[in-house]
Amino acid sequence: MTTMADPAPLTDIRACVFDAYGTLFDVAAAAARCSSALDGRHQELSALWRSKQLEYTWLRSLRGDYVDFWHITGEALDFAMASLGFEGPALRTRLMELYFTLDAYPEVPHTLRRLRSAGLRRAILSNGSLSMLIAAVQQAGLDDDLDAAISVDPIGIYKPHPSAYQLAVDRLRVEASQICFLSSNYWDVSGAAYFGFRVVWINRSGARRDPTPGEPEFEITSLDALPALLGIAEGETNDV
Amino acid sequence: MTTMADPAPLTDIRACVFDAYGTLFDVAAAAARCSSALDGRHQELSALWRSKQLEYTWLRSLRGDYVDFWHITGEALDFAMASLGFEGPALRTRLMELYFTLDAYPEVPHTLRRLRSAGLRRAILSNGSLSMLIAAVQQAGLDDDLDAAISVDPIGIYKPHPSAYQLAVDRLRVEASQICFLSSNYWDVSGAAYFGFRVVWINRSGARRDPTPGEPEFEITSLDALPALLGIAEGETNDV
Repeated sequence: MTTMADPAPLTDIRACVFDAYGTLFDVAAAAARCSSALDGRHQELSALWRSKQLEYTWLRSLRGDYVDFWHITGEALDFAMASLGFEGPALRTRLMELYFTLDAYPEVPHTLRRLRSAGLRRAILSNGSLSMLIAAVQQAGLDDDLDAAISVDPIGIYKPHPSAYQLAVDRLRVEASQICFLSSNYWDVSGAAYFGFRVVWINRSGARRDPTPGEPEFEITSLDALPALLGIAEGETNDV
Repeated sequence: MTTMADPAPLTDIRACVFDAYGTLFDVAAAAARCSSALDGRHQELSALWRSKQLEYTWLRSLRGDYVDFWHITGEALDFAMASLGFEGPALRTRLMELYFTLDAYPEVPHTLRRLRSAGLRRAILSNGSLSMLIAAVQQAGLDDDLDAAISVDPIGIYKPHPSAYQLAVDRLRVEASQICFLSSNYWDVSGAAYFGFRVVWINRSGARRDPTPGEPEFEITSLDALPALLGIAEGETNDV
């Protein structure tokens, strides 16, 4: 699963910290469940919704105009729906409700349980507001598999600002060099590596790397490959 | 040209401050001149090049990892060329050379001269490095039509950070409320309005507004409509 022929495992890791949206939870799932109301254009809507959502986090952080991720998710959906010619408060409400309780990727529960069995701490570090994170975690039945859900909301600035990554260090009381950070979003991977985390890129979509400083140590295509990277033996699996 | 039926002119303006890329200079011109080497996919390359260029300015500003706009423009081109399957240092060099001396939009010279005749100060405020701005200004023959070319480079952070907009206030010694800021890029329009400038959006492409705070007072489709907004009489035209 890794892109290297014979990767050395990640050593000296005490905690795994996961990005949420795109990494644990499938951001395309909300629009996919409304595909008929979206005339089959759910992928187009998802892509624009996501792209604008990220753009708004960066622009508002930079100009010092923070609002929480739920608000930004709504603004981005408004832009995406209007751009594609979709209207109506009912469809908007439905899409937002679905985004609040996105599906987890199928390998997430058993991967988290293997990490727990191996004695590693597990947390989410996300742009999402705490209510969004709690709702998604509960929907996916992951309450007992995580030590913490950490939102950037209390500091009022989004990733990749270094203060956002520092939250995980402070909350878990684990040094950055002993934290394995995982994200599917390359800008987040690069920002986290630049900050000082040990980083694994979950490249689910075959995306291309940006040529900015800050590179992942490993690139895998799903979280299934993570335990092996951390040197966790196969027998500890506890599939659901 | 304006989107409002009978707009009141912009009053009490002492200076017009222009964004450079996309506003005065046509960012699509570089790839367009290489359309055969790009197998006719110059618009696709331009769009991705531009999108990544902006993304890198925001991400690097946010994570505190500034490099100048020339460097970022090269990184974005590398990503765009690789994504579309184009290779070769000769093509890269040619595209970068063309970007260094982009074409000005046709209405730029005579618009600046009308503003000058009317006693308004005129400046560029751009993410571009000073050498890029000087090269583009000279190429377009605008040296005598501008009072200043202001780059964000000395402060090491990109628009829409408020410090970037503050540079124009400090350099021109004109209050923000007496500066008319013009940009074709909505994120820049919104950031500048949020900062406190009086803002006109040059919406050349029929783009849609983002639903973020900070709105332009006027929206026009080319700079030709600017003098009328500023109450400059028709007879002062000095077409080139």
